[in-house]
Amino acid sequence: MTVVYDKVALIGLGLIASSMALAMKRGGLVGQITGYARSRDTRDIARELNLCEVCETADEAVRDADLVVLCVPVGAMAEVMADIGPALKPGATLSDVGSVKKAVIEAVSPFVPDGVHFVPAHPLAGTEHSGPRAGFATLFDNRWCIIVPTPGTDRAAVERLEVLWQGMGANTDEMDADHHDLVLAVTSHTPHLIAYTMVGVADDLRRVTDSEVIKYSAAGFRDFTRIAASDPTMWRDVFLTNKEATLEILGRFTEELFALQRAIRTGDGDHLHAYFTRTRAIRRGIIDAGQDTDAPDFGRTPVKR
Amino acid sequence: MTVVYDKVALIGLGLIASSMALAMKRGGLVGQITGYARSRDTRDIARELNLCEVCETADEAVRDADLVVLCVPVGAMAEVMADIGPALKPGATLSDVGSVKKAVIEAVSPFVPDGVHFVPAHPLAGTEHSGPRAGFATLFDNRWCIIVPTPGTDRAAVERLEVLWQGMGANTDEMDADHHDLVLAVTSHTPHLIAYTMVGVADDLRRVTDSEVIKYSAAGFRDFTRIAASDPTMWRDVFLTNKEATLEILGRFTEELFALQRAIRTGDGDHLHAYFTRTRAIRRGIIDAGQDTDAPDFGRTPVKR
Repeated sequence: MTVVYDKVALIGLGLIASSMALAMKRGGLVGQITGYARSRDTRDIARELNLCEVCETADEAVRDADLVVLCVPVGAMAEVMADIGPALKPGATLSDVGSVKKAVIEAVSPFVPDGVHFVPAHPLAGTEHSGPRAGFATLFDNRWCIIVPTPGTDRAAVERLEVLWQGMGANTDEMDADHHDLVLAVTSHTPHLIAYTMVGVADDLRRVTDSEVIKYSAAGFRDFTRIAASDPTMWRDVFLTNKEATLEILGRFTEELFALQRAIRTGDGDHLHAYFTRTRAIRRGIIDAGQDTDAPDFGRTPVKR
Repeated sequence: MTVVYDKVALIGLGLIASSMALAMKRGGLVGQITGYARSRDTRDIARELNLCEVCETADEAVRDADLVVLCVPVGAMAEVMADIGPALKPGATLSDVGSVKKAVIEAVSPFVPDGVHFVPAHPLAGTEHSGPRAGFATLFDNRWCIIVPTPGTDRAAVERLEVLWQGMGANTDEMDADHHDLVLAVTSHTPHLIAYTMVGVADDLRRVTDSEVIKYSAAGFRDFTRIAASDPTMWRDVFLTNKEATLEILGRFTEELFALQRAIRTGDGDHLHAYFTRTRAIRRGIIDAGQDTDAPDFGRTPVKR
């Protein structure tokens, strides 16, 4: 393996940053990794895990770094940038891993010094766990990382970042920010909001006790609870910053839901059957694209009690 | 293992019936298994797989059976019962595996001859696949089977059926029909309708091409597509026959969704954060109850391409 960057700085040390550190080490992709997190606890855990050289200030972490990656919630990026902007090395690449791209570009761009290449990115990978202990080296294997070059972004900087992500196991693709935010509103943001809603409803129902909902969760609800266990701060920021696209897709969702609800109320079995047949085909496509297994029970290892 | 029933007849030979046949054989739980399916293709496949003694008529399959299990979609049960009712052996137990219980009891009861013990049941297990080839012996391991005794049901018949389900790997519990239908509306029926809706919306969007939705599905949408790949006929019947409870939970869902939508529109981050924090706890309960794994990526085996 060739070293892609001599020094990489990770700002924020949660699930994504810690997985990046482990994946970069696995691939021998970088010479040195520094890191910073605002919380002392997080810094202590990262040190204990020996994830990277943990610094006491963000300034110190980014000094002389060839690549700086913002791995903080979308809503915290402007503040972090105001802090580290002046310390960035001329010629360095600045990137991020935010789930929303238009709002990140608007928040970060004003603080990018001349001569620093800003290349926003979004790895489509994660679990419902958060914090530095949640990271693992294979998180990005066979997942997609979407690169969102801004107008005038240096092509060499874009391509070098793509080589890094490929070295960490990901497939890379490029997209503009608006399109990214719409695609993600469909494949991720709206599904998450819906899952959060359904789990909240179940939790609210007084006649169906918590223990019953939990006991009988394997019937479909279980998959919703995993999604709805994702990091609350990250997801609050996603919805607040991808407001327009999420509200648009939610509107379409509600319209469709009302049509199906009406079919149930009026007993229109043909409408329901036709709808459910159509949605089956899209699943086949996902299996064929290698983005999931069709093994029984999701390929889960049976849980022993 | 002790033999629980000398002869068991399975009416309908799909995912559940074929898994039952394999699980009963695994446990040495029954002396003889007969089966019938309306479709000649299904009967031929079941014979080829050597699942059970496949009969050419339902009458022939149930003759002398000590246990008859209706494994057809909920909407087909009355018709099947009209057919086999007169052929049931006095003293036999009649059961089913329908996802809805009140409607099944109303449909089936009028056709149950005197001296036959009707014990409705619902194993909470399944995959998105259907048909006799989809069955596997471990489907019910560590899953719940809910028994819904009707008023006056013979206790000995109930307990014997529970022994069979436990022998097939399941945990058993008893519940009345109304409560069952409400719990399942929360843990299964409404989540399925929502997943079907979201996948349909994604499929409809012209600006987000199919291939993008599929490529980037791992970000949350993927879990919805699995749920939305379930058998269309079975699910049509579920919604038509558990109309009241499903519409009630859907109403609660929509109300909650509108509140979250409003929080997004008005930028109320505190409301979103508090909601997302609450839903996280319920996930922990499911892991602790042994109904899912907290392994990264759902415990899926990485997909190789």
